[in-house]
Amino acid sequence: MQRKIRFSAVAVVFGSCADRYVLEGYSPKKSFEEMMESAKKVADLEGIELVGGWHLTSRNAREVVKKVEDFGLRVSVIIPELWSSAKWGLGSFAARDKKIRQDAIDEVKRAMDLARETGCNIVAPWFGQDGYDYSFQANYIKAWDLITEGLVECADHLPDVKIAVEYKIKEPRTHCFIGTVGKVILLTKEVGRDNVGVTLDVGHALEGYENMAESVALLKRFGNKLFHLHLNDNYRLWDDDMIPASVHTIEMLELLYWLDKTGYDGWYSLDIFPYREDGQRAATEGIEWIKALFKIIDKIGKEKIEQVIEQGDATNASALLRKALTENL
Amino acid sequence: MQRKIRFSAVAVVFGSCADRYVLEGYSPKKSFEEMMESAKKVADLEGIELVGGWHLTSRNAREVVKKVEDFGLRVSVIIPELWSSAKWGLGSFAARDKKIRQDAIDEVKRAMDLARETGCNIVAPWFGQDGYDYSFQANYIKAWDLITEGLVECADHLPDVKIAVEYKIKEPRTHCFIGTVGKVILLTKEVGRDNVGVTLDVGHALEGYENMAESVALLKRFGNKLFHLHLNDNYRLWDDDMIPASVHTIEMLELLYWLDKTGYDGWYSLDIFPYREDGQRAATEGIEWIKALFKIIDKIGKEKIEQVIEQGDATNASALLRKALTENL
Amino acid sequence: MQRKIRFSAVAVVFGSCADRYVLEGYSPKKSFEEMMESAKKVADLEGIELVGGWHLTSRNAREVVKKVEDFGLRVSVIIPELWSSAKWGLGSFAARDKKIRQDAIDEVKRAMDLARETGCNIVAPWFGQDGYDYSFQANYIKAWDLITEGLVECADHLPDVKIAVEYKIKEPRTHCFIGTVGKVILLTKEVGRDNVGVTLDVGHALEGYENMAESVALLKRFGNKLFHLHLNDNYRLWDDDMIPASVHTIEMLELLYWLDKTGYDGWYSLDIFPYREDGQRAATEGIEWIKALFKIIDKIGKEKIEQVIEQGDATNASALLRKALTENL
Amino acid sequence: MQRKIRFSAVAVVFGSCADRYVLEGYSPKKSFEEMMESAKKVADLEGIELVGGWHLTSRNAREVVKKVEDFGLRVSVIIPELWSSAKWGLGSFAARDKKIRQDAIDEVKRAMDLARETGCNIVAPWFGQDGYDYSFQANYIKAWDLITEGLVECADHLPDVKIAVEYKIKEPRTHCFIGTVGKVILLTKEVGRDNVGVTLDVGHALEGYENMAESVALLKRFGNKLFHLHLNDNYRLWDDDMIPASVHTIEMLELLYWLDKTGYDGWYSLDIFPYREDGQRAATEGIEWIKALFKIIDKIGKEKIEQVIEQGDATNASALLRKALTENL
Repeated sequence: MQRKIRFSAVAVVFGSCADRYVLEGYSPKKSFEEMMESAKKVADLEGIELVGGWHLTSRNAREVVKKVEDFGLRVSVIIPELWSSAKWGLGSFAARDKKIRQDAIDEVKRAMDLARETGCNIVAPWFGQDGYDYSFQANYIKAWDLITEGLVECADHLPDVKIAVEYKIKEPRTHCFIGTVGKVILLTKEVGRDNVGVTLDVGHALEGYENMAESVALLKRFGNKLFHLHLNDNYRLWDDDMIPASVHTIEMLELLYWLDKTGYDGWYSLDIFPYREDGQRAATEGIEWIKALFKIIDKIGKEKIEQVIEQGDATNASALLRKALTENL
Repeated sequence: MQRKIRFSAVAVVFGSCADRYVLEGYSPKKSFEEMMESAKKVADLEGIELVGGWHLTSRNAREVVKKVEDFGLRVSVIIPELWSSAKWGLGSFAARDKKIRQDAIDEVKRAMDLARETGCNIVAPWFGQDGYDYSFQANYIKAWDLITEGLVECADHLPDVKIAVEYKIKEPRTHCFIGTVGKVILLTKEVGRDNVGVTLDVGHALEGYENMAESVALLKRFGNKLFHLHLNDNYRLWDDDMIPASVHTIEMLELLYWLDKTGYDGWYSLDIFPYREDGQRAATEGIEWIKALFKIIDKIGKEKIEQVIEQGDATNASALLRKALTENL
Repeated sequence: MQRKIRFSAVAVVFGSCADRYVLEGYSPKKSFEEMMESAKKVADLEGIELVGGWHLTSRNAREVVKKVEDFGLRVSVIIPELWSSAKWGLGSFAARDKKIRQDAIDEVKRAMDLARETGCNIVAPWFGQDGYDYSFQANYIKAWDLITEGLVECADHLPDVKIAVEYKIKEPRTHCFIGTVGKVILLTKEVGRDNVGVTLDVGHALEGYENMAESVALLKRFGNKLFHLHLNDNYRLWDDDMIPASVHTIEMLELLYWLDKTGYDGWYSLDIFPYREDGQRAATEGIEWIKALFKIIDKIGKEKIEQVIEQGDATNASALLRKALTENL
Repeated sequence: MQRKIRFSAVAVVFGSCADRYVLEGYSPKKSFEEMMESAKKVADLEGIELVGGWHLTSRNAREVVKKVEDFGLRVSVIIPELWSSAKWGLGSFAARDKKIRQDAIDEVKRAMDLARETGCNIVAPWFGQDGYDYSFQANYIKAWDLITEGLVECADHLPDVKIAVEYKIKEPRTHCFIGTVGKVILLTKEVGRDNVGVTLDVGHALEGYENMAESVALLKRFGNKLFHLHLNDNYRLWDDDMIPASVHTIEMLELLYWLDKTGYDGWYSLDIFPYREDGQRAATEGIEWIKALFKIIDKIGKEKIEQVIEQGDATNASALLRKALTENL
């Protein structure tokens, strides 16, 4: 099978990952240059995904982008700053405060401007703070109205820049509005703009009890809406942001197959939090897994896989995977 | 607040519930008459939901309906037989076998005919067997095509009979295609018929990490598609089919509030599996909970609740509920 | 590495699996002879685990055992009938009714007698019905007293027959008393008899968010208490009883490694529910997976694995597994 | 029923809660004095639980304790600093590095010294960093040996100061060694010191699919080992650290009943993370819930509750709770 995989990584992979207990991070703080220095050493890595608020602000954006390019990398995607400062604690696009909402919309527009400037032409907003924690805390209908309106305004700002909405069922809110593949597809339909699609994050799908391959298939069926992809893994109950394929090896294989099958041509971007690992090595390992699994797919061959899928015989499917992963020792 | 609640129960509540270990059921088998005898004794119960295959077949349907009426009850909803015999093991509307698919569609049409005859005018198909268990076992896109086509055919069969599709994320398949509120709304949009809507089952929503109130709100927003309701409770990881409100008391309160708020006027139907309980007493208890929680809502008053929702202040929301549930001792 | 794996399967694998919806089973009923005919054809299968109530009763026990042997197989383990009839609905060893409790104890003793007669010398009681569903329904302390006393009585009945208690966190009760590896080890300590140990079921461990390898290690550390093993797989939230390694391939590898490392010398027994699959093929596939994964372990070599464990470096661990599973294509 | 509830709160309740996205915290940083100023205003709050590393260090400990007392509060419990700095990223008591292990042990000893000085006489170590994230990353047996040895050393340091080990199934590691009530009881048995017991955190129990009342009962049965209690709530899949009773109202009622029944006489300490709420109001609300639920228990009366538990009749149990929570409107 002929395919060209473009690998990317969220810049945070190369920084010092923190959690709510170790706020200083599990490893020494690094300058952005040091992070790019690490990234540069990862074989096959071409793109860097920048997180607004953490890696770039409206002030330093151009300078940061230049630094990325100085290290032989390019900006793959820009993530607008909608979830990393206290300001958004009660929501961004769906905030009750009109001023906050407008700031959020402006933040996405600025990210879009920058995306056009850098040539990546894609932003990936994540409405992680738009949700609720307790019963009787949210007006669900109004929230959807506001998120839809905000996205329409952004989409129309620059119709040639893609907006790839990332969905997630929980965290940082106990419930996020745009939580599942079904909901995010509904949202793209409601927005009704060609440049508004979806970012599928493997771990987010898993913690919503989704099978990633199925989610990719649905995104294809409902308007070819898979614009961007975040790779990682977890134990299905939380967004552990681990090295891809380290837990769900076979489901990852199926995901990769369906990406191929549906003609996905975007980035394969690592979104992992290597709290206790070295970022450069973890990123390398993640890319090696993806490449190795694609080789397994090619080893089996598209025809045999399609045959197994068409039959729907679980034992045959299992045998095919088992042989591909364990034979010719 | 003025409302008229019509209570119903799935007939199985009054039978002998079995699971995969105790296939004979946890209590002695009962005749249908004995089941109705029990149902009749449940205060405020008006409707009985009949499950195709278990309580009625195309052959005995009219006779069964008459029996229900003889006991002073009426048929609330008819559930087509799409998941209780081995025939559907590999799917109903999405089965690979064309003959099976057509049988499934015909089953729904027959249920619709009967629903019109009985005057209940609503059927609740559940595609529990349409899904997959293993990776590389399903063609997700084709499955959606088939389910959509089948539903269109059914919807056009009798446009004045409602089809309330019940969604569920897992069981009996490890993954069911029509699994979440987002997906089922997408399905109704794809089908595009006024008589095709949704059955919300509380336990199914909970095991998909949904907040039921939010799901009701979305069903309202996207076409007023809540056609039917199944009440029960569980521990959020499996469809335990327990007495409603026995675990998630406050989320149940919020659900009831949003049913009111969105003008839901369908049945409040108990879908519990009282494996080790007496069905009549368990049903009575479930209805008592719902009535009691509506009284709590009225005690607080719509205005105060709306105020709390509009504020979005979690502590205020908590205090309101706490006081309503625990004060005036 | 030199090891002798003895494969076994629960007899139900070769029957017609039912669930709470399709009570007749997903495939035609089979006679016990037909089941053994299938089992006989599974390469490397030596043992059959018999479930009391389903496959043998106190009346037909000797006859059934003979049939197993006529097919060239032998009884690996006997599972006492404590959970497959309505009688135990409110508990077996922990039932409130003293008569029921004594019947349950007698059932285990009879199974022990038979285990000695057949020479397998091991029974695997599972207290699936001993638990609770609702709050305020159980006296937890009393339940533990009763289970402990019952086990002491059984243990002393035949000290040379092993009792391998199987633990499970939920199903058929929403909460089972003997639910986790920690609890079952506590139980063995409380019982304090050499012939009382544990059955580890992979799927039960997974649905309790256990890592199976860790559970094996703890069973080793606390008295070498792993007496028996059930192999299967699931999606971590429910006991889906799937083909082993079909979901959690890498965790299964780690489990097998620790079984070796801790010197486990009991049966490798398949406890799967191939509802929609052919039992013979599914069992064969399960055994092939285990054999293939042991080859992967041998390919890597004990030394390298120990090294990786001692380092505790996640990226190295990942790389080792990746290479073993995907290289030399 | 006569009881004296002593309420406490973890100091963090009154600070600025951060998560891995909003590292600066969701509200403005507060000085310790400001935090105590808030705490002081919470009706019925007597104790403050101090977290090593966050609120006190070996250097400022005495000064901090004095400040607490200046505000009319007292130190309820001291949590040793074993999980809030990068140093412990690969473990504390179970770290591979001997120096780190000794530092961790010394940290607990220092906390014990301070606990004696302040008169609270109790420390609550939490081994959150002692665990693993990936397969083949841990030597589970060795880890238990090390944790046991470390605790013995600490226990013997000051036999009159209680060590209340807090267990948690996951976070910050994807798997923590001391993860469930069963495991922590095993640990206390292995350590075998009278001054080593357990801290039960409601949310930790819930995310391990425990029923808190059952966990309290087991801690009673196995040595009267419940030394300390953390109150909060969550949605059962993650440690959301919400206001207690806001989700699992009825399970909280049952917990409180069993605390009474088993004679628990320690602190009722709030361990919530009010990211987006005002700490003072959230703490007040939490205490109000506990007081209100105890009133419900008293309203029902011990006799009736015991009767319901002894019967084990789920419908009766449900009715009792329903009436207590919703009648006399």
